[in-house]
Amino acid sequence: MSHSSQIKVRGFHLDIYQHVNNARYLEFLEEARWEYLEDTGDLEYFQSLGLAWVIVNININYRASATMGQTLDVTTALSKVSGKSAVFNQVITLAGTDTIVADADITFVLLNQKTGKPVKIEGEVLERMEGHLKAVGEEL
Amino acid sequence: MSHSSQIKVRGFHLDIYQHVNNARYLEFLEEARWEYLEDTGDLEYFQSLGLAWVIVNININYRASATMGQTLDVTTALSKVSGKSAVFNQVITLAGTDTIVADADITFVLLNQKTGKPVKIEGEVLERMEGHLKAVGEEL
Amino acid sequence: MSHSSQIKVRGFHLDIYQHVNNARYLEFLEEARWEYLEDTGDLEYFQSLGLAWVIVNININYRASATMGQTLDVTTALSKVSGKSAVFNQVITLAGTDTIVADADITFVLLNQKTGKPVKIEGEVLERMEGHLKAVGEEL
Amino acid sequence: MSHSSQIKVRGFHLDIYQHVNNARYLEFLEEARWEYLEDTGDLEYFQSLGLAWVIVNININYRASATMGQTLDVTTALSKVSGKSAVFNQVITLAGTDTIVADADITFVLLNQKTGKPVKIEGEVLERMEGHLKAVGEEL
Repeated sequence: MSHSSQIKVRGFHLDIYQHVNNARYLEFLEEARWEYLEDTGDLEYFQSLGLAWVIVNININYRASATMGQTLDVTTALSKVSGKSAVFNQVITLAGTDTIVADADITFVLLNQKTGKPVKIEGEVLERMEGHLKAVGEEL
Repeated sequence: MSHSSQIKVRGFHLDIYQHVNNARYLEFLEEARWEYLEDTGDLEYFQSLGLAWVIVNININYRASATMGQTLDVTTALSKVSGKSAVFNQVITLAGTDTIVADADITFVLLNQKTGKPVKIEGEVLERMEGHLKAVGEEL
Repeated sequence: MSHSSQIKVRGFHLDIYQHVNNARYLEFLEEARWEYLEDTGDLEYFQSLGLAWVIVNININYRASATMGQTLDVTTALSKVSGKSAVFNQVITLAGTDTIVADADITFVLLNQKTGKPVKIEGEVLERMEGHLKAVGEEL
Repeated sequence: MSHSSQIKVRGFHLDIYQHVNNARYLEFLEEARWEYLEDTGDLEYFQSLGLAWVIVNININYRASATMGQTLDVTTALSKVSGKSAVFNQVITLAGTDTIVADADITFVLLNQKTGKPVKIEGEVLERMEGHLKAVGEEL
């Protein structure tokens, strides 16, 4: 399962180099993950369990620059789930092309909001997340 | 009483026009107000009373552009207090010059954090705030 | 003529008060103005004349708070044009309600990008902008 | 050689979780790198050669949360230089403690600003950068 979002680059997204600033891309990725969590029903599901998604690592490659007026596609998919953490793979392309602007792996843990501590990913939660994993060879 | 902060313009503050973006100035002003609230002891004082400062209006003039590597001075002073609201006057200049980059009036009310409703500015709170008013003719 | 944009409030738009931060609203307004400029063809038109829109004043009222998951409507309309400057009126409401979250007047001048100096708004440019003025009583 | 910067966490740096948002950390890191480039004279040196620093990868670990009023130390050091790219290692700690809030490796290439293409890191440039490498075991 994967989710696709779009964003149009505006003047306030750019920096001194006239390209989208590298911090701004993290906002584009966060926006896309919120959309993913809404569309899959995960936002409601995890909130009902008192679990928050907490990011522990972001590894992002900047491959091409994007500038004013361009439209970006952001695809978001769960790519890996283990007992301790899970990984979103997100890819930003220039809309309508194969040009990858950036791609990132976002690793997170699930936090019990009452205790403030990470929980093991197991049982029903694990099953649900495994059901959302991007199938091998799935087209984004 | 007035407070002076400094900020250096960086590449990520700029936008498509190579100048500091107008939204970013509001962050510079907010930073300077936090420093003011700390230095005057107001942050602690109002928190101890369960009162939050809530902005109801910002009126900002953009008078000159600022760009990469320039240092900005931000002066912050309470300029007006009434029973319902109060006003911060903030002026941003190019450091070491008289060139005004932007100036703003920030109008706020005091909110009772328990009820979520604005409170009248009176008694000891009013006195304290009046004591902080910028004196007429005071050099910033 | 008026233009309507929508934005959904995300976790990264909020600040310590769990409400959309006041600087972030300026980005919402800028996004809506870019959409307006594209939809009206003004972006292309003014670029072809070598003219840039430069903001000289923003006067924004914060009337209600907005938080995570809410959808905001932003309406954008030219409300005033004179020989020296023009004004956008922008109103942000909670989608599907009459609740105004914020409203703002954005005053700008037209800058000749070669000389870096403001130009008089006159002739064909003035006519075009007057044609875009919000009609009295027009529903937003 | 390593450089140390400080930043105080403000209300507008936080997000829905009342912690510094993960995109905001990239701005803290960028601010610290500009300071490093100024203090070492690298900013002037590379500009004089028409070379820009372009980030190709950011790998950041979020290890502890930071919130309102805390002061953060950011240390910045060149940790690796090769013929094709170089790496900044940056570590954010809670000031006055050993608590690491985040640490990141920032990989960049040098871009010839005229051709827009990456250049080989060699000769005098390579020597200069190697001279700036953090010594093994150097205290940050």
